[in-house]
Amino acid sequence: MNTNNLSTSVIFPIGEKLETDRFKGTVWLKMLTPADSALPIGNVTFEPGCRNNWHKHAGGQILLVTGGRGYYQEWDKPVQELHPGDVVTIAADVKHWHGAAKDSWFSHLAIEVHPEIGPATWLEPVADDDYNQLK
Amino acid sequence: MNTNNLSTSVIFPIGEKLETDRFKGTVWLKMLTPADSALPIGNVTFEPGCRNNWHKHAGGQILLVTGGRGYYQEWDKPVQELHPGDVVTIAADVKHWHGAAKDSWFSHLAIEVHPEIGPATWLEPVADDDYNQLK
Repeated sequence: MNTNNLSTSVIFPIGEKLETDRFKGTVWLKMLTPADSALPIGNVTFEPGCRNNWHKHAGGQILLVTGGRGYYQEWDKPVQELHPGDVVTIAADVKHWHGAAKDSWFSHLAIEVHPEIGPATWLEPVADDDYNQLK
Repeated sequence: MNTNNLSTSVIFPIGEKLETDRFKGTVWLKMLTPADSALPIGNVTFEPGCRNNWHKHAGGQILLVTGGRGYYQEWDKPVQELHPGDVVTIAADVKHWHGAAKDSWFSHLAIEVHPEIGPATWLEPVADDDYNQLK
């Protein structure tokens, strides 16, 4: 792992490499709240080109961008480019994905909203053709 | 207002100066979520020496420290010194205060946990003698 070129704006610990088939590329996760927290908050760090599959949250999610350059997209909507300081409020059950730009690390805090309603539902990968045309 | 000496780690907007008698010193607040959010998140920036009064939250609160050096204290407990990357989970109805060190700006994200339970209750100022002896 080489994180030397990670944005200097990173504040929270990078945590552990996540072994998952729900992302393409390498991602790290550090949970910032205790396991039994009513409000789980994770620090998610994507290597350049890494993104998660389409998915949705039963209670919604909030992303607070802390480093790098990345994207957020809701199904049938345009891609939004994200930079440090950006905040994304994702409504319950909205199908979406997020991840890094091809040429940049990307980190955000991810806050589960009303996790007691239910877990995330993971869906298909983002089409490579769609991702590869992003600038 | 002079924020030139604010920590370079600041990511989120500083927002507006807060006119309040619940803090000693000058504090800025930028709400990062919409006014009707189920999960209000604010970016709070304290000038050196600024701290809030003792208070408690009906549903609890989580602080994510993003810049500078500051303190957190619960009633009848020792003061904790805070630095960027620190996370404080405050249980419901626990009397506490937070704020900057005398010689440093301080910024944290503040997340209200279960705000639907009720608002914060504001109490007496932190005793100057107690604050002034902090290093």
